[in-house]
Amino acid sequence: MSDRYPETLHCSTVARSRLFRVEALGLRFSNGAEVEYERLGGGSHGAVLVVPINERGEVLLIREYAAGTGRYELGLPKGRIEAGEDCLQAANRELMEEVGCGAEQLTALRSVTLAPAYFSHRTELVLAEQLFERRLPGDEPEPIEVVAWPLDGLGRLLAEAELTEARSIAALYVARDHLQR
Amino acid sequence: MSDRYPETLHCSTVARSRLFRVEALGLRFSNGAEVEYERLGGGSHGAVLVVPINERGEVLLIREYAAGTGRYELGLPKGRIEAGEDCLQAANRELMEEVGCGAEQLTALRSVTLAPAYFSHRTELVLAEQLFERRLPGDEPEPIEVVAWPLDGLGRLLAEAELTEARSIAALYVARDHLQR
Repeated sequence: MSDRYPETLHCSTVARSRLFRVEALGLRFSNGAEVEYERLGGGSHGAVLVVPINERGEVLLIREYAAGTGRYELGLPKGRIEAGEDCLQAANRELMEEVGCGAEQLTALRSVTLAPAYFSHRTELVLAEQLFERRLPGDEPEPIEVVAWPLDGLGRLLAEAELTEARSIAALYVARDHLQR
Repeated sequence: MSDRYPETLHCSTVARSRLFRVEALGLRFSNGAEVEYERLGGGSHGAVLVVPINERGEVLLIREYAAGTGRYELGLPKGRIEAGEDCLQAANRELMEEVGCGAEQLTALRSVTLAPAYFSHRTELVLAEQLFERRLPGDEPEPIEVVAWPLDGLGRLLAEAELTEARSIAALYVARDHLQR
């Protein structure tokens, strides 16, 4: 078991686009091994992913086009944490923009990473309860479809072909565990 | 609800490094809205993430340094599917390289995505049972620590600060559901 962190030999930006920045870094491990890595630079304040539960015990999912996979995908509302927001404020704003409701009660469940070998990115999972109608304008190109699904039918929901995102799947399980305690 | 896919107006590579390729693409949605996106190009055969369960009902996790987050992370063994491999073959090879054992029984559980708005990447979740000792040389810079954890203590495992990866969390829940059926 190693607790001695590797030493950074060099780190620089090797590619950059409007949204992405690629860093190359060289590390020397405590056993002397030297390795060259690439990772996507952060620079953002992280993201939130929201599990909204209505008064009937249904989770509110959204269905929207995803440019990465080139398909319509079913998942939980999410977005970036903007400067000056904490994760609960960001969760409530995203909920208003994407689902058209706010939440009286917001609970930070846990933080997750996407692919820790390549990204510094973190997403805060937030449970949203006691919902009320409230819509904020979002930046979506077409209206987002909202899909209500009973949380006690999670097995059937997970079998839906359009629900693929690991963060949404993890968040649904974590929220159900939290609500059952 | 829209089932009319957007039309691609243009798509080109705008940044490239050793590991990453960024594509810019313009889409016109069925309502006429035009939006500019960026996504990370694929080109790989995808990845596998393995849930190895030993004869004592313990899941075998690995603890290794992650360059993206700059921390030691606890997670499930994983890696790329190489040319000519199917996901079960890739899972068994990664298991031998990272954990030092093979599996007599391999079950494809499901496929997940990372962040479908930005990545085309897919990861196949594979359950590995009936393990036997067998080590293949890997490309890790230092020996990987293997951590055995009872799968029926999943709640405590999820509370470990070093376990953060959404794919690993989703895979642990999905594997437990599968084994309980």
